Amino acid sequence: MGVGVVVLGASGFAGGELLRLLAGHTGMELVAAAASKQTGRRLGDLYPGLGYAEDLEFYSVEDALRVGSDLIFSSLPFGHSAELFGQADARKIVDISADFRLKDAAAYEQWYGQKHLAPDDLSRWVCGLTEFHRGEIRTATRVANPGCYPTAALLALVPLLKSGLIGNEGIHIDAMSGVSGAGRASAEGFDYSSANENVRPYAVVGHKHIPEIEQELGRVAGSEIKVGFVPHLVPMTRGILATCSAPAAPGVDQDALLDAYRTSYGGEVFVRVLDDGQLPETKRLSGTNFAEVTARLDARVGRVIAFCAIDNLGKGAAGQALQNANLMFGFKETEGLEAMAVTP
Amino acid sequence: MGVGVVVLGASGFAGGELLRLLAGHTGMELVAAAASKQTGRRLGDLYPGLGYAEDLEFYSVEDALRVGSDLIFSSLPFGHSAELFGQADARKIVDISADFRLKDAAAYEQWYGQKHLAPDDLSRWVCGLTEFHRGEIRTATRVANPGCYPTAALLALVPLLKSGLIGNEGIHIDAMSGVSGAGRASAEGFDYSSANENVRPYAVVGHKHIPEIEQELGRVAGSEIKVGFVPHLVPMTRGILATCSAPAAPGVDQDALLDAYRTSYGGEVFVRVLDDGQLPETKRLSGTNFAEVTARLDARVGRVIAFCAIDNLGKGAAGQALQNANLMFGFKETEGLEAMAVTP
Amino acid sequence: MGVGVVVLGASGFAGGELLRLLAGHTGMELVAAAASKQTGRRLGDLYPGLGYAEDLEFYSVEDALRVGSDLIFSSLPFGHSAELFGQADARKIVDISADFRLKDAAAYEQWYGQKHLAPDDLSRWVCGLTEFHRGEIRTATRVANPGCYPTAALLALVPLLKSGLIGNEGIHIDAMSGVSGAGRASAEGFDYSSANENVRPYAVVGHKHIPEIEQELGRVAGSEIKVGFVPHLVPMTRGILATCSAPAAPGVDQDALLDAYRTSYGGEVFVRVLDDGQLPETKRLSGTNFAEVTARLDARVGRVIAFCAIDNLGKGAAGQALQNANLMFGFKETEGLEAMAVTP
Amino acid sequence: MGVGVVVLGASGFAGGELLRLLAGHTGMELVAAAASKQTGRRLGDLYPGLGYAEDLEFYSVEDALRVGSDLIFSSLPFGHSAELFGQADARKIVDISADFRLKDAAAYEQWYGQKHLAPDDLSRWVCGLTEFHRGEIRTATRVANPGCYPTAALLALVPLLKSGLIGNEGIHIDAMSGVSGAGRASAEGFDYSSANENVRPYAVVGHKHIPEIEQELGRVAGSEIKVGFVPHLVPMTRGILATCSAPAAPGVDQDALLDAYRTSYGGEVFVRVLDDGQLPETKRLSGTNFAEVTARLDARVGRVIAFCAIDNLGKGAAGQALQNANLMFGFKETEGLEAMAVTP
Repeated sequence: MGVGVVVLGASGFAGGELLRLLAGHTGMELVAAAASKQTGRRLGDLYPGLGYAEDLEFYSVEDALRVGSDLIFSSLPFGHSAELFGQADARKIVDISADFRLKDAAAYEQWYGQKHLAPDDLSRWVCGLTEFHRGEIRTATRVANPGCYPTAALLALVPLLKSGLIGNEGIHIDAMSGVSGAGRASAEGFDYSSANENVRPYAVVGHKHIPEIEQELGRVAGSEIKVGFVPHLVPMTRGILATCSAPAAPGVDQDALLDAYRTSYGGEVFVRVLDDGQLPETKRLSGTNFAEVTARLDARVGRVIAFCAIDNLGKGAAGQALQNANLMFGFKETEGLEAMAVTP
Repeated sequence: MGVGVVVLGASGFAGGELLRLLAGHTGMELVAAAASKQTGRRLGDLYPGLGYAEDLEFYSVEDALRVGSDLIFSSLPFGHSAELFGQADARKIVDISADFRLKDAAAYEQWYGQKHLAPDDLSRWVCGLTEFHRGEIRTATRVANPGCYPTAALLALVPLLKSGLIGNEGIHIDAMSGVSGAGRASAEGFDYSSANENVRPYAVVGHKHIPEIEQELGRVAGSEIKVGFVPHLVPMTRGILATCSAPAAPGVDQDALLDAYRTSYGGEVFVRVLDDGQLPETKRLSGTNFAEVTARLDARVGRVIAFCAIDNLGKGAAGQALQNANLMFGFKETEGLEAMAVTP
Repeated sequence: MGVGVVVLGASGFAGGELLRLLAGHTGMELVAAAASKQTGRRLGDLYPGLGYAEDLEFYSVEDALRVGSDLIFSSLPFGHSAELFGQADARKIVDISADFRLKDAAAYEQWYGQKHLAPDDLSRWVCGLTEFHRGEIRTATRVANPGCYPTAALLALVPLLKSGLIGNEGIHIDAMSGVSGAGRASAEGFDYSSANENVRPYAVVGHKHIPEIEQELGRVAGSEIKVGFVPHLVPMTRGILATCSAPAAPGVDQDALLDAYRTSYGGEVFVRVLDDGQLPETKRLSGTNFAEVTARLDARVGRVIAFCAIDNLGKGAAGQALQNANLMFGFKETEGLEAMAVTP
Repeated sequence: MGVGVVVLGASGFAGGELLRLLAGHTGMELVAAAASKQTGRRLGDLYPGLGYAEDLEFYSVEDALRVGSDLIFSSLPFGHSAELFGQADARKIVDISADFRLKDAAAYEQWYGQKHLAPDDLSRWVCGLTEFHRGEIRTATRVANPGCYPTAALLALVPLLKSGLIGNEGIHIDAMSGVSGAGRASAEGFDYSSANENVRPYAVVGHKHIPEIEQELGRVAGSEIKVGFVPHLVPMTRGILATCSAPAAPGVDQDALLDAYRTSYGGEVFVRVLDDGQLPETKRLSGTNFAEVTARLDARVGRVIAFCAIDNLGKGAAGQALQNANLMFGFKETEGLEAMAVTP
């Protein structure tokens, strides 16, 4: 009998991705999938081809929480998790929402526009960017899975910052995301006809993922760091590319950049460091938990361009959540996550 | 009898766009379309639905130059124009290639990797970014149409720079282009299956459009300016979005940014200044000569984000070429360019 | 002062296409655009770049009908038109909805699942498939614009049937439509992420466009004709391709098929008959009122394959509506419809 | 030590898909991958992220055949296999090309326009449509993997024909394929800009897959059967949908259609029979070896519409090839093929 798993928010894209990944996991067992608006509907109606769980029915979130389990993956809209998980619960939780990512309840209120409902609980939660917090995650009972954009931006920037290869000021991040980042319940502008053949920036100045990026960069640098961040919507389903421009530290050369990545990610299965001849492509990562990172020194202007591509629903959400859960329960870190991308 | 027009490079995407636009022009008449590899083939075989010119045959470039005409649009690969147009020719020329964009033959050699074949001729050529050089263009016989990326980046940056709202150092431009920018003769990586569902940077550090951007920014600023520039390929056919991050000058506020655009573009038909509630979208510009520009002050980090979206084959190539030719021949500037985008 | 035009359903894709086309029409003038859910909103908010009408406000349908005008284009959901236009109204009307397409109120009830609200009015309405009903349309005050699928299927089949080149029995039509056919207010399954990279049939056996196709084929044949029809959704924004398989009449050869088209469409501006070496492509028609038709004899199986491609929002909706209105008011039939497709 | 595998044509899309699938197979081991034009290049250069085989080099076809192995997957262009495999070779071979699919060398010559190079060998080859030839495949040394279109069409039609639910005459198949079916080395018309936002038929009357379909239908019916077949290119990377129209046998009802599928495919893992409320979608099958089939009785016209969707590179090529090889070597039939589709 495996680790019993509950998935909250199972009708969303991240929740659905978890259901897909769990199908290939040898040690976890889905005991309930919750999506309040779908309560009572067969999982197979929303996910034909799901196989192992097609005949299960969606639970309400409340009912799902009453089912005995060892682990909860929660992918509910922000605000819900803080309410649900504030209380004592012996189960381990990986929360894919934004509720427990910021350590500072005041910052949460500032960026999310509402009071945090469980501020005293924040300290219990560990940041789920696996490659940087693996030790804590292994022993954690509460993991706050990072956002898709922070995952990409931080995988690109942290090793360079930690090695002193880039400066703290004037970091700018442009990120391009596939449309699945907007979720299934699409509003005006996300229907096929509007999103196809279209590139557009959105949420310029003030995207909610900014404080997450700054919190982690500040932790690494040991001092406050502020970044510019502009997300863009591009006409593809999955994938994020973060292109980060940062001032080069004096004397940095191209080799030092790649060396910093190789040092940081040398033992990492899921982060591929591309060398000088290669640049990241989102397509090669689609459906996977892998990331591609590389950087280029632009000596003419004294800046470094650092790149990271991921699948926003993979390493940017469900994949990393499972990677973290694997650590929390002592599974092999790659369990259920070995599949490579389907290309072309 | 209208202005007689020759189109060189008529089998490429920019050349084809010119043929389409000429169909709607009341004062110009196509007298020859040249594409050396297609010599003798009916235009209608490559462009079914072209109507007015379907039964013409492609000329070789050499033969087309011998045909009497008033105007030459040239959209040949770089290097060719410098060879062809170095000599005296009474006709007016709009060159869509890169050969006469840089004023400095040494810079050409540095960025294009080959000697310029007509360095003495460079001074005769006027920069074809219409909104900034309209006066010179009216009387020019030689216009060097700017590249697609420079057009987008400069429309976003020049008014802010001219007004002193942004600083000269630390300007970074990320640009996203549709695949038609790569041309019809597609190499590995541009077939549908490889380019679809994929976002990727390319030509990082060293793209040939950089000196063009720097030359014009430097001219406006009165001193040398260097920029970082990263182009990205996104899965759509047409469109470019330039997202430019620049240091805000002290005391700048959001209103000043939009005011600078409104001052610069107040009388411009083809540049739409978007206000605070709107952000550019490439789809709204597809097939047109229009541009959308706007900017946002990111006060937290002391930087300005300036945006410009265009159609890379429209304002970024054939559209602007026709706009310039209209000025050169005294036509209404919008002649043949009034059509709005087909959306969705 | 031009013909005053009211557009009902102006927030939908067909209504929006009409607004775009009217911008290029020299003899019509928009006096009101109605969309009940958008009442009071600026047209420019929904249609940035619309230019001439950006500062108008959406009317409610009721208010728009009270505005004085010469012509009404109505693109409301089915059922509404029958209610609104059943009464006497001196204005000319082109209805893009399905309400007045079927001559038989009983057939309407059978296929649309509700009683027709103005059965006595049906005889006043003329079928708006221009190429087949031009004479009646010129003098009509009420034109029922055909559906997008019937337009494509009938343009392919009618000339062959009229010439006796195909039999009446065993006609099967497979049609592929872009996603804009589903409209702007997209339900589950039409968001970008679900529709992209996906082909699927829908409404198999019983699509509402079947009786329209059968009514017109029956009229041409002089006897009842039944057809099989399967629509498919394909991942593009605009375009319909109808592939029609029909039994070849004895002795038919390939030349006879193309001759029949050339005879039927010899003087037609908007229907391109492709010859043996060409097959239709939707992309070449996008944003236009043009159609491409051709056919192939499959002598091995004794059947004819007839093709027609159109833009579902062009010749399949707004384009043909304007073509009809041009006839009704004595304008040149191509007025406002000359633009060729933007390709690639 | 597992079954040693050679992949010929490893730089093509089907070959690449085999390399991907082999990564997840516990009993097979890649010993050589051949692509003559890529000889000496690292596999990882063409397939970044391939992992297990990134550091191998491409062999020439000739060299690869000299490497000791138990199994050859061949995905070379037609004509090559007949030359290579005509001679005695103790190894088992699954040929994904067309060379050994037709039992009749004269038919091969007629449809492929060249003489068959190993006509005496044809009888050794077993048809690799697994669900219909499983017994023979288990003991075969030579399996001719069927084409992508035949796989889809036959999975839809065979059960209905075998049960006598459809007639032999007047079967028409329209099929829609993603662009990857055209292969990596794309000709004019398959670059992104030309294929995007475009639907077009091709190879109308005379596609090479017709005789394959007819051969198998004829075998099932016990008499010659001819079909109409029209392939279409749609703008997506992977997937085929076959929509088949056939005359309904007298007295057939809807239940009988689904019952026939359930009987035929009751024990099949890879064929999902959809019930009355569901229709196939290519996206749900992308990257997998699964197929979705269903049918609808159109009683009004006395015809049956039968559908099958597959991934053209999965069940339509590499997936089925591996499924067959699993049978030939006594592996579990699903080995390496369990992954479900990545959706959305």
